[in-house]
Amino acid sequence: MFPKDSVGIVRTQIAKLPDLTLENGAVISPLEIAYETYGILNPSRTNAILVCHALSGNAHAAGYHEGSDKAGWWDGYIGPGKAFDTNKYYIISTNVIGGCNGSSGPTTINPKTNKPFGSSFPFVSIQDMVNAQKLLLDSLGINELFCVAGGSMGGMQALQWSVSYPDIVKNCIILASASEHSAQQIAFNEVGRQAILSDPNWNDGEYGDNPPKKGLALARMVGHVTYLSDELMREKFGRKPPRGNIKNTDFAVGSYLIYQGETFVDRFDANSYIYVTKALDHFSLGRGEELTLNLSRVKANFLIIAFSSDWLYPPYQSREIVKSLEVNAIPVTYCEVNFSKGHDSFLVPNPEQHHLIHHFLEFAQNFSIFYEI
Amino acid sequence: MFPKDSVGIVRTQIAKLPDLTLENGAVISPLEIAYETYGILNPSRTNAILVCHALSGNAHAAGYHEGSDKAGWWDGYIGPGKAFDTNKYYIISTNVIGGCNGSSGPTTINPKTNKPFGSSFPFVSIQDMVNAQKLLLDSLGINELFCVAGGSMGGMQALQWSVSYPDIVKNCIILASASEHSAQQIAFNEVGRQAILSDPNWNDGEYGDNPPKKGLALARMVGHVTYLSDELMREKFGRKPPRGNIKNTDFAVGSYLIYQGETFVDRFDANSYIYVTKALDHFSLGRGEELTLNLSRVKANFLIIAFSSDWLYPPYQSREIVKSLEVNAIPVTYCEVNFSKGHDSFLVPNPEQHHLIHHFLEFAQNFSIFYEI
Repeated sequence: MFPKDSVGIVRTQIAKLPDLTLENGAVISPLEIAYETYGILNPSRTNAILVCHALSGNAHAAGYHEGSDKAGWWDGYIGPGKAFDTNKYYIISTNVIGGCNGSSGPTTINPKTNKPFGSSFPFVSIQDMVNAQKLLLDSLGINELFCVAGGSMGGMQALQWSVSYPDIVKNCIILASASEHSAQQIAFNEVGRQAILSDPNWNDGEYGDNPPKKGLALARMVGHVTYLSDELMREKFGRKPPRGNIKNTDFAVGSYLIYQGETFVDRFDANSYIYVTKALDHFSLGRGEELTLNLSRVKANFLIIAFSSDWLYPPYQSREIVKSLEVNAIPVTYCEVNFSKGHDSFLVPNPEQHHLIHHFLEFAQNFSIFYEI
Repeated sequence: MFPKDSVGIVRTQIAKLPDLTLENGAVISPLEIAYETYGILNPSRTNAILVCHALSGNAHAAGYHEGSDKAGWWDGYIGPGKAFDTNKYYIISTNVIGGCNGSSGPTTINPKTNKPFGSSFPFVSIQDMVNAQKLLLDSLGINELFCVAGGSMGGMQALQWSVSYPDIVKNCIILASASEHSAQQIAFNEVGRQAILSDPNWNDGEYGDNPPKKGLALARMVGHVTYLSDELMREKFGRKPPRGNIKNTDFAVGSYLIYQGETFVDRFDANSYIYVTKALDHFSLGRGEELTLNLSRVKANFLIIAFSSDWLYPPYQSREIVKSLEVNAIPVTYCEVNFSKGHDSFLVPNPEQHHLIHHFLEFAQNFSIFYEI
């Protein structure tokens, strides 16, 4: 049985949606979006919260799939009485386009060839991901988002939502994110992409049933190092010898990374890895005055959280967003949480983040009721 | 012509030395050490300074090789009137064993097979590298080191020298280094090694004339990201488009990394990369009480420098060495230099580091003269 505060058994649904014209002019037709929902949409359709996943996430944010004991990626935060309280809110989680977990992307079968699109799938941007989510909400009859929330790439989607659809988004939660990638963030993604491109199975993305597993595993290994903090790795692995049956390494941290790489390739597609990291790297609402200008149309209230040990998305990047919001006199609560889990902090059960999200939403709800009176 | 403060034309020499028995019991026979010297050994043979290189360095630390306009890797610090003043000191620079630039290592021809040793070359440690350097000094008739100095892996060698040969080392300069690698430092090296091992040309290290270039290039790319600071990369590349003829990337930082990887494979050997990074990762004089105990026999005076922007070898690792030296009442000068070049700071011309080294040596020289009186 599941814990009492779990949303229980859920399933991923696929919505068939109208064509989506991308920023670059290409058209995704038909557009398919994989999504899950938790909680109940209220009659006035004003209690919807969209949660957006990070690089390797999917639509399965909470609860359990039939026959599996693996909870969704944000199960600690979504459920009855949890930060995103399913007794109050209707939570929607989608898989991004360009991904490989049900939404349109390189693994989608091209009806013209009966083979996956592969690298012939058009490039997608964070803006495109958001526009695709908008089409899903339209199809669900939701014209208002009480909140849009996400960490890392999910935070970028949330921020883009607030810019692209200022009249729809009432509140916005951005965790461990940035208004654009720095050269260092691009660099780590670039190493991952080059690892995939260096794999002899890459074949310009037309690898069919023979994917570039080694390259993708290496990309995941690089990524994984950047998601953890120095301190966490020290506690977790230190200088200990390798664990399990993993060969070719002398250290526990090596066997961990190799394992992470090897298991990742079974659940992620190499083309999608390239598409999604490129969407991340090309996302730019700017910094300083440019960011301030881009955020001038925004109407949402913001909660922004950064983590002290997150060196991949350092707190200064969150503060840049906060500053530009403040210049625009947009209400924003900012907190730098002292938590040792590195960039992954926003995914990990963390009482402080839980508390901050819970009270931000609580306050926002009271505030909106106040205004309705 | 060369600048006036250059040591001018130099050449790398190869010393044939007595057999070296390694820590693991294996024997390197014959032992060959590639080295260069700058300045003049004084009649009392007391003015020798050994400089130790980092991961991808070599014996060519200063001046120019005949027909080349590329200066040695520490040319900014070694020369007449420079920090390591060749008017006063006799500077010796060696290539580490296990490397691939003239000293015994995997690229050395095995006389029994007439082929490179490859992965049949025995594992070497930082201690072994130091013991090999000791044999070279013996052959040069040098029984006292006025100073041993190095950054990163060079700093580890310098520290190990002070522990292994306390009566020989008078002064010790350790830059951007650590008493042992953290899990994070091991992790980045591990990704590099796995990239090499994943290359189809790897062939268990017996790759002959068909080396795993793509894997080695990837390893170098990962490494390179860790050598630079967030700030430096931002200034140097930002989010600019790719430069030159480099394809398969959308960003300047990508074209830079690809170029660094591609050129590295022409000057470095994949087996050596694995040997040297393993030596780095296995090096451990401990931390805290263990380190204090290991440093209790040390007799040198120390200058230790860390760099504010060096996130690969963060200043706290230098402070750990400082603390253990202080507990042992060993004279140590510590400085955390505010410099934006990341881990590479110690290699880059940097007035503050120049000043600190110059005056540390100056003071040490006056101090030793004082004692001789």
